[in-house]
Amino acid sequence: MYHGPGKKSWETVPDPRVEQDTDVVVRITTTTICGTDLHILKGDVPDTPAGTILGHEAVGVVEEVGPGVRNLRKGDRVIIPAITACGTCDYCKRGMYSHCVKGGWILGHTINGLQAQYARVPFADTSLYKVPDGLRDEDVLFLTDILPTAYECGVLNGNVKPGDTVVVVGAGPVGLAAVMLSRLYSPALVIAVDLDARRLERARRLGADVTVQNDREDPVDVVRRHTKGRGADVVIEAVGIPATFELCTELVAPGGRIANVGVHGKPVTLHLEKLWAHNITITTRLVDTETIGQLLELIAARRIDPTPLATHTFHMDDFMQAYEVFGNAAAHDAVKVVVKQG
Amino acid sequence: MYHGPGKKSWETVPDPRVEQDTDVVVRITTTTICGTDLHILKGDVPDTPAGTILGHEAVGVVEEVGPGVRNLRKGDRVIIPAITACGTCDYCKRGMYSHCVKGGWILGHTINGLQAQYARVPFADTSLYKVPDGLRDEDVLFLTDILPTAYECGVLNGNVKPGDTVVVVGAGPVGLAAVMLSRLYSPALVIAVDLDARRLERARRLGADVTVQNDREDPVDVVRRHTKGRGADVVIEAVGIPATFELCTELVAPGGRIANVGVHGKPVTLHLEKLWAHNITITTRLVDTETIGQLLELIAARRIDPTPLATHTFHMDDFMQAYEVFGNAAAHDAVKVVVKQG
Amino acid sequence: MYHGPGKKSWETVPDPRVEQDTDVVVRITTTTICGTDLHILKGDVPDTPAGTILGHEAVGVVEEVGPGVRNLRKGDRVIIPAITACGTCDYCKRGMYSHCVKGGWILGHTINGLQAQYARVPFADTSLYKVPDGLRDEDVLFLTDILPTAYECGVLNGNVKPGDTVVVVGAGPVGLAAVMLSRLYSPALVIAVDLDARRLERARRLGADVTVQNDREDPVDVVRRHTKGRGADVVIEAVGIPATFELCTELVAPGGRIANVGVHGKPVTLHLEKLWAHNITITTRLVDTETIGQLLELIAARRIDPTPLATHTFHMDDFMQAYEVFGNAAAHDAVKVVVKQG
Amino acid sequence: MYHGPGKKSWETVPDPRVEQDTDVVVRITTTTICGTDLHILKGDVPDTPAGTILGHEAVGVVEEVGPGVRNLRKGDRVIIPAITACGTCDYCKRGMYSHCVKGGWILGHTINGLQAQYARVPFADTSLYKVPDGLRDEDVLFLTDILPTAYECGVLNGNVKPGDTVVVVGAGPVGLAAVMLSRLYSPALVIAVDLDARRLERARRLGADVTVQNDREDPVDVVRRHTKGRGADVVIEAVGIPATFELCTELVAPGGRIANVGVHGKPVTLHLEKLWAHNITITTRLVDTETIGQLLELIAARRIDPTPLATHTFHMDDFMQAYEVFGNAAAHDAVKVVVKQG
Repeated sequence: MYHGPGKKSWETVPDPRVEQDTDVVVRITTTTICGTDLHILKGDVPDTPAGTILGHEAVGVVEEVGPGVRNLRKGDRVIIPAITACGTCDYCKRGMYSHCVKGGWILGHTINGLQAQYARVPFADTSLYKVPDGLRDEDVLFLTDILPTAYECGVLNGNVKPGDTVVVVGAGPVGLAAVMLSRLYSPALVIAVDLDARRLERARRLGADVTVQNDREDPVDVVRRHTKGRGADVVIEAVGIPATFELCTELVAPGGRIANVGVHGKPVTLHLEKLWAHNITITTRLVDTETIGQLLELIAARRIDPTPLATHTFHMDDFMQAYEVFGNAAAHDAVKVVVKQG
Repeated sequence: MYHGPGKKSWETVPDPRVEQDTDVVVRITTTTICGTDLHILKGDVPDTPAGTILGHEAVGVVEEVGPGVRNLRKGDRVIIPAITACGTCDYCKRGMYSHCVKGGWILGHTINGLQAQYARVPFADTSLYKVPDGLRDEDVLFLTDILPTAYECGVLNGNVKPGDTVVVVGAGPVGLAAVMLSRLYSPALVIAVDLDARRLERARRLGADVTVQNDREDPVDVVRRHTKGRGADVVIEAVGIPATFELCTELVAPGGRIANVGVHGKPVTLHLEKLWAHNITITTRLVDTETIGQLLELIAARRIDPTPLATHTFHMDDFMQAYEVFGNAAAHDAVKVVVKQG
Repeated sequence: MYHGPGKKSWETVPDPRVEQDTDVVVRITTTTICGTDLHILKGDVPDTPAGTILGHEAVGVVEEVGPGVRNLRKGDRVIIPAITACGTCDYCKRGMYSHCVKGGWILGHTINGLQAQYARVPFADTSLYKVPDGLRDEDVLFLTDILPTAYECGVLNGNVKPGDTVVVVGAGPVGLAAVMLSRLYSPALVIAVDLDARRLERARRLGADVTVQNDREDPVDVVRRHTKGRGADVVIEAVGIPATFELCTELVAPGGRIANVGVHGKPVTLHLEKLWAHNITITTRLVDTETIGQLLELIAARRIDPTPLATHTFHMDDFMQAYEVFGNAAAHDAVKVVVKQG
Repeated sequence: MYHGPGKKSWETVPDPRVEQDTDVVVRITTTTICGTDLHILKGDVPDTPAGTILGHEAVGVVEEVGPGVRNLRKGDRVIIPAITACGTCDYCKRGMYSHCVKGGWILGHTINGLQAQYARVPFADTSLYKVPDGLRDEDVLFLTDILPTAYECGVLNGNVKPGDTVVVVGAGPVGLAAVMLSRLYSPALVIAVDLDARRLERARRLGADVTVQNDREDPVDVVRRHTKGRGADVVIEAVGIPATFELCTELVAPGGRIANVGVHGKPVTLHLEKLWAHNITITTRLVDTETIGQLLELIAARRIDPTPLATHTFHMDDFMQAYEVFGNAAAHDAVKVVVKQG
């Protein structure tokens, strides 16, 4: 539970109950921690009130079902996405659930979240996905956020095509997922850029052909060398600071695409005095989680395996320790931590 | 002829001849002046050498044909686009003629241009369009640059769809063309923004439903009022300065598109700290002129009429005067000037 | 009410009530008759049981609201589309409401329909649209079926683009709507084909540039003459018999698209021995009504006016007479009939 | 050389010379035989005159260069696609080279082809591709026809997406290539259908997850079983007879796509009385070879390896034997034969 900037606890609270017709209550069996949770704890997200239970990524079992829920039953194993969708507003009808006027990113943000034994989830019918038989919690856990984030904001917005050169700037959890998922469209070359040699080693295992440790080598040189001087067809920004965004604009080829995934806290400089004539496209997106069904098919068919993104597993009783490891990811060589109940 | 920053003349020069197999020489019958020509004259375009004949927009009659030209004959009336395409490089194969490795924007830029009685045009077969019978020079003159610029960089990149709200920031020649051409996709509402009341009056005549004189009214307020507070689906930047680009990012709705058309001389600030989560798309483009054929069909079918964009007509002998009027467009209430020979 | 092949009546029945949580009951203020209703009456639609109230196109006022309905209130004026959408099945998530596993086309087909004083409508939140202030029933009535049918199955599937040549085969209600709505994308030329001179006259008033009465003139000749021998970019089939479909395949240019809208009762012959090499696309679609919101924006903005499609108006007490006129449309020069209550 | 129906020979003829400015003469180093060549020999292609050298798939070395050729030099190793493109007609500008008004499929069809020691190739600059260093003739030979055919007409027209179920009907050379290339878009499941068990074994090696020998098992049952009864997202027809096309229409799911690749000699029956409401798309296409550059990138990057499609290799002196083997492919378990000179 978040208790204001810098303060958190793992404590006993009353169990949540169905409040709206369309709610369910889920017993959380597996959850994880997001970089965004760390931001909230630092006080960077002022619309999260003190006293909020954090967490927006979990798998669990339905315990109680509101009277307006038609498609779920007690006992169903479900994926709880970071984004909640009312299913009827204009944004939902366009599949842009991130901007749902009643939902969107509310779990662990403006209402209690999923880092708990039980959680109330609104708009259950239009938000949750059943876990297919034969898949474990770990197989589907990252469908709640980082996989659709990397896929929708990075790979799809970047419009990766067979034969393309793709650069992923940032090899954190989402950047690594972007490396892995860009492979679904068979680029000729995937280049990962990061400062951390161990993360780049992971990027290679997940599908990067070339890696650049950018305090040792200039990514612009490397990309030009591999593209006859032209630059990359697709550049995915997965860090969220001005320097990395501006690097992306130097890496992109004329006619190319920059897909921003990173969460930015400051404005960036866009060199339109050069780029106005370069026929480029820049996209931003808060994950809509509209591709969970598609990615779930690919996991069920064993076309993608997201489990290597999980580096540490904890029991829910050790949640504070899980935060300590994830909060010092570099020291622990951590990517994503998994927290399980029971 | 450009004679270095601030210096120009209209003078007698030797007639051009076919130099390469794929050249033609055209007798220019009608031409015009572009804002870019004014930039060159100010010295803003350093790769244009002193002694270059300016101009990249003209209609004329083929006078001499190189031995490698297969599709044109002496006497053909032709549209000479601003962009020259070799037709065989990778960029040309993708229709991205603006970045043709041998051509692109070279006329009146790196080689002699079209503000002359005769002009040499390279790669004629893959660059020129014949004028259909029944159309006058004036009907097709703006196909050489401002119409495809407004259409490709603004309307198509902005992906205007029926029912959309479109804002065009800047009601100069290209902005006015964007107002007119966005109508081809039947937006529900077109809003034009400019400082000049007379240009806004023209925008209304060309299809703007609402106009905003932005030193008197706040365009953000107006756009919100017309869109239930959401912002515009498409915003077209047709000025090219930081303030107008940043205005565009305030006007765009979540899920919307900003199509940059303006030629920028300075970097802009992009507020990714807000926009990262707004699911927007920003595009840039140097006109490829790949839609001239399509726009020509629409002119021939009388679906669009670009002639109201021409406000003044001069004989070629009065070229210096044409420059004077176009260079002080606001004082003369000029949009485009037409310069004709004989 | 349908009483089995050839038998219908207008009779007093008990008022419908809310049966499911997500139902509403609507007092029908304006409705109409569809060609499909005539098919049902002939016995061509065997899954419609005798005793079913027909009708799937109406506007009305919400009278009673189920406990699970969140977005509608008693007194709301609503558009009731032909297609009912549960909002949660896989097809609904893709916007393919026509194939909704619990809904789809059920009104006046497998459950009681809208040609009545009151009607029960399932899945109200995810199926109905509120009528904006300032619009009359007549302005929005055809949004329930023929406008989205012509737009989705014809114009969008046909991918009409500015400058295209479009042929609409069949100038019945849906064909006429396709003529009108194809204009939204600014084709250079719209050609309508029908046997009935009066319908072709209507087509011209709604936007056809050229009409062909195909017992007097060969449409293939006319289309070739207008397209330099190439054929049409887009051909919309709006009849539903083998001869007209096969005509479409003769009218289409290499690289063109045939959008089938007609409801077919028999197989057709597809001349793949010729067409395999013609780079064509053929589409079929049962209307999803997913574009009602977009078309409603265009009606509210006065970009399209569907009211000329209504040729006759009746009071609900004269429903049998309305059927007589619509069932003999040619004799009465009828397109759509409007039936109003009170 | 084709000598009229049923007659062919391998004989000595005068070497070809440059005839048009834009021609090159190529010494053929590696070529192959296409099913279409067998059709010509049977007399099925009446516009091929007796006395024509067959063949439209080859790799070679430029020997002589016309004066209008700018991008190729004597000694360049080149891929000679089946389709010749003038580069300037309307179809070429749209990338639809198959319908080039001066080119298209002419080699080994209306002019002498590539099954020879030397061949004249028109429109060389806009038709040929240089072989990158490090690639052998065998690596790129199938880029001339079957790879872009399977990719453009099958995979791209079928719009294969990650997670889709794809069925390829026919496991001949093009069908096998479609199995392999559909993998570029990461479908969840690829199902191959054929009568020949050995071809299905090859399909499995090239990436089919499931194979159906359709005289032993009903493909409709198999596809339904793997798709929860819905049918396939994409069905690729790679045979060219009515029975297989009609099978495709039974295999496709609502909302799915049928991409016809097969060369048909007879009309087919299209069951629009069922399909009109199934929201399907049917495409046809003669290969444009516009994706050769993209596929070449993928071969150079070792993302695809087409060499397993070659089952037999011959020296050019044994060309008649190569025809015998390819003409009796089932008996010899042949897919593609490779014929090399020197």
